[in-house]
Amino acid sequence: MSEVKDLSNSVIFPIGDVFESNNFNGTVHLKMLTGKPCPIGNVTFEPGCRNNWHKHPGGQILLVTGGKGYYQEWGKPAKKLHAGDVVNIPADVKHWHGAAKDSWFVHLAVEADASKGSTEWLEPVSDEEYERANSN
Amino acid sequence: MSEVKDLSNSVIFPIGDVFESNNFNGTVHLKMLTGKPCPIGNVTFEPGCRNNWHKHPGGQILLVTGGKGYYQEWGKPAKKLHAGDVVNIPADVKHWHGAAKDSWFVHLAVEADASKGSTEWLEPVSDEEYERANSN
Repeated sequence: MSEVKDLSNSVIFPIGDVFESNNFNGTVHLKMLTGKPCPIGNVTFEPGCRNNWHKHPGGQILLVTGGKGYYQEWGKPAKKLHAGDVVNIPADVKHWHGAAKDSWFVHLAVEADASKGSTEWLEPVSDEEYERANSN
Repeated sequence: MSEVKDLSNSVIFPIGDVFESNNFNGTVHLKMLTGKPCPIGNVTFEPGCRNNWHKHPGGQILLVTGGKGYYQEWGKPAKKLHAGDVVNIPADVKHWHGAAKDSWFVHLAVEADASKGSTEWLEPVSDEEYERANSN
């Protein structure tokens, strides 16, 4: 129940519906707030949920509004994220993001340059990779 | 003091320094969170502060994270804004935004298409126009 309590403080933008996708391991909610030329989605990960490794041809900006989660670039250690953190993901950099095992995680995801094309989805984050992020 | 209390719940992103500008009537704080191709600023208006009428050649998106404020397009009534509201400002539409008289107001400002050029600043919002917004 503590996770739900945490979320009550961090819901600013609409949570939206559950987003069904094979590119996420766990349950995620998505509400698109704007469309082109600058699509912004409010993304809410339930505890333990993360997305697969992926790349954005135009880059992406994460604006964290609540909860606790991780961002990891390929070949680097995961970074812990909480409300107020901003991640500037460069174009074509392989990465993943998602919630900690014990917390919801909410961020706005901004397509920095949507004209460059859509996300390239890759392999899932392994349990070992995810455990290592959570043990930092 | 109530305004400060309100703000303590709405400070998510860094508040930044006071932004000195002749295009604002009152005290505003600005922290740029990202740069090109998708500049995002965290803008915090003190109570009573609003900007002049202006236009964005590439449009702008406001993501309200705290407090109470207004958005008005030329020739239309002002809209009251609070946390969770999203305003999609079309390119070249004359408008202003700012805090209510009795509340701080915090929003993220996203340049939807920064490649189109910079803001065109116009005349100040008159006291009469501002009073009318606050009396809605």
